[in-house]
Amino acid sequence: MPTRKMTSFVLPVPVTAGKPSLQDNTADLDRLRHVLRGSLPDSRPLEIPFSRIVPLCRRFRQAGFSGVALVNDLPDRWVLADFFPEWPGQLPAMALDLGTTHLEATLVDLLTGQILFSAGRENSQIEYGADILSRIHQATSVRRQVREVVDPSFIDPGLAVLRHSIVTCINGLIGDLASGSGVAASDIRALSVSGNTTMAHLLLGLDPFHICREPYIPMVNVIEPMESWELGLILHEAAPVWIMPSAGSYFGGDLISGILASGLAATEQTRMLIDVGTNAEVVLGNRDWLIACAGAAGPALEGGAARMGMRAAPGAIDFVALDPNTYALEVRTIGGAPALGLCGSGLIDLVASLYLARIIDIRGKFRDPDQESDPGRAAFMRERLVVRDGQRAFVVVTASAAGAEDEVLLEQIDLDAMIRSKAAMYAVLATLVGQVGLDFGDLAEICVAGAFGNHINPQRAITLGMLPDLDLSVYRAIGNSSLQGAEQVLLSRSARQECLNIVSKITYVELNVNQDFMIRFSGARFIPHTDPSLFPSVPLFAEEKG
Amino acid sequence: MPTRKMTSFVLPVPVTAGKPSLQDNTADLDRLRHVLRGSLPDSRPLEIPFSRIVPLCRRFRQAGFSGVALVNDLPDRWVLADFFPEWPGQLPAMALDLGTTHLEATLVDLLTGQILFSAGRENSQIEYGADILSRIHQATSVRRQVREVVDPSFIDPGLAVLRHSIVTCINGLIGDLASGSGVAASDIRALSVSGNTTMAHLLLGLDPFHICREPYIPMVNVIEPMESWELGLILHEAAPVWIMPSAGSYFGGDLISGILASGLAATEQTRMLIDVGTNAEVVLGNRDWLIACAGAAGPALEGGAARMGMRAAPGAIDFVALDPNTYALEVRTIGGAPALGLCGSGLIDLVASLYLARIIDIRGKFRDPDQESDPGRAAFMRERLVVRDGQRAFVVVTASAAGAEDEVLLEQIDLDAMIRSKAAMYAVLATLVGQVGLDFGDLAEICVAGAFGNHINPQRAITLGMLPDLDLSVYRAIGNSSLQGAEQVLLSRSARQECLNIVSKITYVELNVNQDFMIRFSGARFIPHTDPSLFPSVPLFAEEKG
Repeated sequence: MPTRKMTSFVLPVPVTAGKPSLQDNTADLDRLRHVLRGSLPDSRPLEIPFSRIVPLCRRFRQAGFSGVALVNDLPDRWVLADFFPEWPGQLPAMALDLGTTHLEATLVDLLTGQILFSAGRENSQIEYGADILSRIHQATSVRRQVREVVDPSFIDPGLAVLRHSIVTCINGLIGDLASGSGVAASDIRALSVSGNTTMAHLLLGLDPFHICREPYIPMVNVIEPMESWELGLILHEAAPVWIMPSAGSYFGGDLISGILASGLAATEQTRMLIDVGTNAEVVLGNRDWLIACAGAAGPALEGGAARMGMRAAPGAIDFVALDPNTYALEVRTIGGAPALGLCGSGLIDLVASLYLARIIDIRGKFRDPDQESDPGRAAFMRERLVVRDGQRAFVVVTASAAGAEDEVLLEQIDLDAMIRSKAAMYAVLATLVGQVGLDFGDLAEICVAGAFGNHINPQRAITLGMLPDLDLSVYRAIGNSSLQGAEQVLLSRSARQECLNIVSKITYVELNVNQDFMIRFSGARFIPHTDPSLFPSVPLFAEEKG
Repeated sequence: MPTRKMTSFVLPVPVTAGKPSLQDNTADLDRLRHVLRGSLPDSRPLEIPFSRIVPLCRRFRQAGFSGVALVNDLPDRWVLADFFPEWPGQLPAMALDLGTTHLEATLVDLLTGQILFSAGRENSQIEYGADILSRIHQATSVRRQVREVVDPSFIDPGLAVLRHSIVTCINGLIGDLASGSGVAASDIRALSVSGNTTMAHLLLGLDPFHICREPYIPMVNVIEPMESWELGLILHEAAPVWIMPSAGSYFGGDLISGILASGLAATEQTRMLIDVGTNAEVVLGNRDWLIACAGAAGPALEGGAARMGMRAAPGAIDFVALDPNTYALEVRTIGGAPALGLCGSGLIDLVASLYLARIIDIRGKFRDPDQESDPGRAAFMRERLVVRDGQRAFVVVTASAAGAEDEVLLEQIDLDAMIRSKAAMYAVLATLVGQVGLDFGDLAEICVAGAFGNHINPQRAITLGMLPDLDLSVYRAIGNSSLQGAEQVLLSRSARQECLNIVSKITYVELNVNQDFMIRFSGARFIPHTDPSLFPSVPLFAEEKG
């Protein structure tokens, strides 16, 4: 038995009861309830689910009326889930980051906090739509025709299909964790899920109809834990499922989880969290207040905008270096595989390098090789700049060099999208900081979450004017914070409580109707910015001014 | 809306919420939870079952975010069950007396307390065994072969059969209530069940193996309410089911219900409750203490012992009068139907009359007509006393008179059983009163429950020495108190709480090992008693003394 105080989502509680006799003919369940009641850490009600009574009584009796009760620690009550004859060797639980495109999961031992295994799968719902809006469309395909739902229990067949898809996908992932770790799926005792509001609705079978319709109301933001069998998952049937609460239709549990994992809401210092997924979601705050917004800055950075863009996966170019003197071009791909496209960090590296080598101008346009006075640069430009569909394009990797069938190109249209994205990102950050009357210099830390945070070079993002020009030590890559938050709620009651606090504390700023944002967005559509004094570390090229 | 304070098992709670807007984008369920939380009468946790979320949110939205929430009032929490656009016209709930041989049910309107309909059915499990022990035998038919249950979730096929039988039977009864009252079965919003410990186990699918094995431990005495769908009942799926708690293997919820209905535990005065079913169950007490026991006094009184005995049903002789001077014999049957046998009250009337007419002696033996000096009595005895199988018997109804094929006889063997039963009954009552140092004269009231209580004539029972020789005003027939208690818990929270108090307060006296009981039993095997001074109102016949 551990000496530290456990507060995991599922808690083992040692109990010892007297044996039944003619003098003490208390019934088995009453005996177990009584002795467990006295052993629980607090006075919250103890619930014993009806379906668990027979196996619980049998295990209690088989164990000689002494052993270890397994109780689920729900926000307002204890739920008796199982009974062991002795202290278990491990207590596996699953944390799941339920992304729109990708699922990531870990198997955590609740007794030690140790990660037993990790696995990931593509979100199988992609088959029904790449993004949230098309999934909502699919999930309301019948409902949209009838407009008014008369039967309150009506489940849209489209929703049923999506739900079945994701449940099957998660069950597959559970199988991956089980086979990889040697733990039986039915021995996984809890699950935490962090996903955006729509993904949570699709998993839970909740109607997402109003999520994308003004005034954008989810069916549920905060939901009590349910049991795994209610979702059709192949974990232990009494495993409680923690759905990370969301704060609104466009501020999901994944970001709440990220706030938790980053510790943003836990310190006196004001910090910022940037999570670039399909959207760029940004939170600013400290233990006293939290302000958040989301902007469509993501696609260009996650591979959605650039024609050759792709997720950070094997074959994605994630690093580019271009020597501004020798024009030596270095390109690296994830896993060293033949280049297939550019992921966000590769795109940022490339565009920043092209700017510093003066292949593109401050507006993000390819310069004309014929106007170029420097002979080395002119030669390089003639070698690499081609015309496709009447537009200039930069050959990142030639077809032959890549070992692949196609060359990897950066086209002007990609560049334009990139400039819009980086401008949106900077405008989002600046608007949010401005909303609370602060400057970027007031920030103690900027946490950058996700694959984006792990791969980008903040210096290159600063060069582009995407991130503010701060000391690089301010930036911290925190990895998959959505998954980390999900792991934390499995292990700690204060983490579970903190999620609910975060939801109640957060203020969401709607940028679509924000005048300040629009002004800042226009100013940010240059490299690094219309006002270069904001970016003192970025070189300016005199002849291009004005 | 009623002005009185309702505390029914299911409570309608009016709620009014603001409508969603861009300024207030609270999710539907969060909105409902918040407004309902503020409208509940106390701070117990509010649970919203996962399966109810979609219909609840839809009904809440359809009603314009205002209406009446229906919440189940469980001992330690509220459970949101449904949502109406306006105050309901009625709120039907079902009370069920789950007897070993017979089921009785009423449909009660929780809004008014009014009884909407009543119905009864034979317990369909009779097919598998007439009494509790044979049902337990059936329910453990596989388990008994393997002795040790290894799989904690094992359900004995014998138990599954019995459970299916009773669930089907109850669903039939629900159908009877529904068709009789015009209420849809799915509109019945709650159920309370009072039955003995074994019947409760068989309904709930709990293993009754240890109930009949020393030290006689039920799987469960006190069980939290479950939802009707968990039992397979065709009520509203979220209808909570209150199973009346039991106090032990042989002290079931039916008797707890009777104590509740009689008010025994509610007054300062000490009173007694007698419930004669298969056993005679007797409780003595007041609001400070309760003491109880059960004895095998019942069979002779419920028709189990006498060869011509039967339940109080059409054709049962329930009243007999014999003029001790004219020897005119009057016999009445229930419903005026041709006589089929004797029910308990008829048997008591008959034996008391035979004693007063001096056809039987104080030992309960038929006297010899040839020894009889009174000519009128001698003539009557010669007419009515016959010899069957070498034993004297009294012809209660001749075959021709009855209009039935068979005559109705009272044989010596029946008389002997009757004497044992009445002796056991008196000994039980006297032992219990003696245990707490009281006399019968200290009792403010003796409540006699059930069909037995409704039909017997206390004066005749006193004549036999079955009930103590008290003023008749002390005796009160209270009817089906098991069903009445079940009705009370549907309507009142304090009644539900009182059940649990009764269980924790009651002391059970085991008579099988009680020396005092055995002595009193021997003394009571005469009519009225070995010590006739205990029965001053009963005539003694001098020549028979000694």
